[in-house]
This record gives sequence, structure tokens and C-alpha cells, in this order.
Amino acid sequence: MKKIHITGLGLLGGSFALAAKQKFHELEISGWDINEQNLQDAHILGMIDKTQEFPEKDTDLVILATPADTLTDLVSTMLDKAGDGTLVIDLGSTKGSICSALSAHPKRKQYLAGHPIAGTEYSGPRAAFPELLNRKVMILCEMEKTDLHLKEKAYELFDALNLKLRFMEPEEHDKQLAFVSHLSHISSFMLGKTVLQKMEDDKNIFDMAGSGFASTVRLAKSSPAMWAPIFSENRMNILEALDGYIENLQKFRSKISENESDEMKKEMAEINSIRDILDLQS
Amino acid sequence: MKKIHITGLGLLGGSFALAAKQKFHELEISGWDINEQNLQDAHILGMIDKTQEFPEKDTDLVILATPADTLTDLVSTMLDKAGDGTLVIDLGSTKGSICSALSAHPKRKQYLAGHPIAGTEYSGPRAAFPELLNRKVMILCEMEKTDLHLKEKAYELFDALNLKLRFMEPEEHDKQLAFVSHLSHISSFMLGKTVLQKMEDDKNIFDMAGSGFASTVRLAKSSPAMWAPIFSENRMNILEALDGYIENLQKFRSKISENESDEMKKEMAEINSIRDILDLQS
Repeated sequence: MKKIHITGLGLLGGSFALAAKQKFHELEISGWDINEQNLQDAHILGMIDKTQEFPEKDTDLVILATPADTLTDLVSTMLDKAGDGTLVIDLGSTKGSICSALSAHPKRKQYLAGHPIAGTEYSGPRAAFPELLNRKVMILCEMEKTDLHLKEKAYELFDALNLKLRFMEPEEHDKQLAFVSHLSHISSFMLGKTVLQKMEDDKNIFDMAGSGFASTVRLAKSSPAMWAPIFSENRMNILEALDGYIENLQKFRSKISENESDEMKKEMAEINSIRDILDLQS
Repeated sequence: MKKIHITGLGLLGGSFALAAKQKFHELEISGWDINEQNLQDAHILGMIDKTQEFPEKDTDLVILATPADTLTDLVSTMLDKAGDGTLVIDLGSTKGSICSALSAHPKRKQYLAGHPIAGTEYSGPRAAFPELLNRKVMILCEMEKTDLHLKEKAYELFDALNLKLRFMEPEEHDKQLAFVSHLSHISSFMLGKTVLQKMEDDKNIFDMAGSGFASTVRLAKSSPAMWAPIFSENRMNILEALDGYIENLQKFRSKISENESDEMKKEMAEINSIRDILDLQS
């Protein structure tokens, strides 16, 4: 691993850079970000050795960590310019449309579709830290379409960063993520909005908020520039998840309204089974 | 502070006991729980010195930490039996109906309505720990109705436990808590339910869940026996909060469905202002 290029030096791209620097001491990283302040910060924070929009021909890996709606064009451009030994990886949170759009690209075998399940509610290079990716799941899609030798370069980086690899089809990925990630962000944003609206009548409302509120509303701090494109790209799956969620809320609302205490207890006790599932993972 | 009696030796009652024991070395705590296993556990964990349903006449403080729907009757019974120097405190999460029901009790001045903003998603004495209450907010309602000298005993305990006291009217308390606590629990339970329903088609769906999902769904582990009574007691305020939340979800759903990316970004950017509010608190 000699040369990596990273476009998009935010939380994710920046954390990849910091972690890769720790593991490969000879590594040279070039980088680019459309936001000039981010680019300067990335330099100051030691994420990149030089600033350039496109990688050199002998670059091993090109990592693209920009918003979901920019990635298809960006991967395509990078593939067009890539040397024969370069693998282009995108880290976008949606995988269906990008995989399908790139399926006919003449250099498709130099592309790897990835999605690390790692993030915080903060964004930008100053939010990045090298441990962000440590022991996190990295989903890879359509592995069979990527050149065998080029994949080895990606594995070398992912193994060094302690990423746990998982393989799935793009459609399956998008469907699952709508439920276990995208829906959580919407629920958290709307919870934040509901309490902010209430604050208009009642300025001190947040004084009474405890750790439970903080936990459910944490994701409402997330970046709009990152999340709006995800909601658009994965629209159909998200609408399915959201409709199921709203229906569940309406049914529970009617139990509260009718004072059906035993029914509420029964339903919550069933949902409590999520304890075992979540505890298994942690 | 010589004698305290605690009824309800779960997460909250148990944590009060453990913390009080650390601060007052001569203190004798008697306790009761309707669940025999909890009572045994409380003994083993050193929370209580003796088991009895009702306090002795010379008890300083009686602390009641049972589900919200049991508290009005329990406070009333305890007041009936209380010696002249005993203060009865309830720690329930709703304050309107209990304060109104007890307003005409002949010993009203021996009662203090409290609610500590402290908890975790776990319950029972084995979930208790002495630091649970450290530096947390303790809301007190209708302070003026409690005897001045008896209140001093409560202050002595609360100060020793590093509780930060706040004073508000019961109706105001219930309205605020519906938004910043009760709604979060409902949103979390229903999020858990939505993903559990999806798991019926897709067994591995939780494998892809990251820290964002864990954070939003954490409260779905909470105790149904504690929460169903809160939802019933605070029904009107919770329905108002829930209706606002569902309306916000439906409006955001339509932005996703219509692919209104700029509108989504604008809305999320406004909600991001919650960062400053939450960061101020932590």
C-alpha cells in the first residue's frame, strides 16, 4: 500500500485517512474536498500529504466519501481517469442505484461498492478520529464484479483497520438499512422538531430532558447535506419503513387514548425481546 | 437522618437506598416490594436493613418508588399511618393527578411530590447503582403545601445525593415530560416494533444496525409495568405530543415521497439547532 487518494474529507473520509496513516507508515495520501475549509483542515490535521482533485495513475486505492447523490458520477469519472492498478471504492450509504448505474461501465471491475456501518452525529474533518472504523462492519456489494487482484488491495486496508467484512446484494442492503439506520434518523429528526415546536410556548422545556431524550434525539444533530441525498436515493424502501412506523404509532396512540393498559403492557413486553438481540451485538 | 423507609425497591428506589447508605452511615433503611424476588435481592444487595410493609412511627422519610398508577393510594395509606415527624415522598413520573387527588388529605403537609429525572432502560434492584442520582435534576411540585420543617429532612437527603432541585407546578411538569420523556419512550418502542416486524421476513436485519439504531431504540428495553401506567396517567398531554410527532413524520414523508431534497435539507438544518441546546446541558 503506497498511495491512496480520498475525495470527501469529512467524518468518514477523514477517519479512513487518519487510521490508514497509523497503520501504513510509508503511505502517501492525496485528497480533495469541494469545501475549501475542509481541505485546509484535513491538511492541518495530517490527514493528507497533498491536495489534488484527481489521483495519480499509480494510486492503489481511491476512496470516495461524498454525499450519496454525488457518488455515481464521481465513481464514473474516477474510473475513466484511473490507472490499470487502481481500485475505486465508494463508501455511500445506499448501494442499489450506484451499482445498477455502474454495471455497464467499461472499467466496472476496478470498482468496489462499500458501506462502513460507522458514524457519529457530527460531520466534517474535525469530527474524524482514527478509531471510528475499528471493529465496525464493512458491507461490500457485488464482490464478484470486482477484479480479484485489485480486491486484495482493499482487503489489505480493511484488515489493517480491523473492519469486519460482510457481503450482500445492493437491493438487500438498501432494504435493511432503511429499517435499521435511515428510519432511526428520521424518527430522531422529527422528535427533535416536535420538541423544538413545543419550545415556542415553553422556553424551559429542555431543562427537564434526561438521558433518554438525549439518546433518542442524538441523530437530529446529523448533517442535512449527507442525509437528504440518502432519503432521496433510498426513497422507496424508506417510505415502506416509515409507513410501518407511522402505522405502529397510530395503533399505539389508540391504545393510549382508549386507556388499554393491559394491551400496552403486552405490546411493550413483546418489543422488549429486542433486548436480547441488541445485547448479543454489543 | 436516622430512619428511611422505601417502598418499591427497583432501579430508582434501590439506587436511592444505595446512595443514602453511602452518605449516612448510621442510617437504618426498612423496605418493601410487592415482588418477593426484588425484596430478597434488595436484602442481598445491602439496600435495606429490614423488611416491613409499613414504616415505624419515628421514620424520617418514606420514599415511594412504585408504578405511577399505584402511588395515589399508597401515599394516602402511608400518610394515614405516618407519625407526626415523618415526610412521605413519591418519585412518580406524573404529578398532576396525584397532587390533585391528595390536595384534601388531612395530612397533606406531610407529603412532598417529587420526580427525579434519572433512569436507565433497565429495571429491578439489580439494575440499581448509587451514582444513578448523582447530579441529576429532582423536580418538586407544590412545595408550598409541604411543612417547612419536614421539607428540611428531604433537603438533607437530596443535597447529600447531589440532586439539583427544580420547582414547578404539577400541570406544567406533566406537559413538559410528555414531550421530553414520554414521547421518546413511545418513539423508541415503536421503532423497535417496526424493525422486529421486518425481521419476520429478514432474519439478519439486526446485523447491519449501527450505533445510531442502538441509540434510538435503547428505550424500547424499558419496563412495561412502569411505562403503561405513565402513558395512562398522562394521557392527554401524551396524545398532544404524539399527534404533533405523527404530523411531523407525515409531512416529512411527503417531502421524501416528492423528492423535495432542498426542503428536506432546510428542515433538517433548522432542527440541527437542537445541537446547541443539548450541548449546553451536557
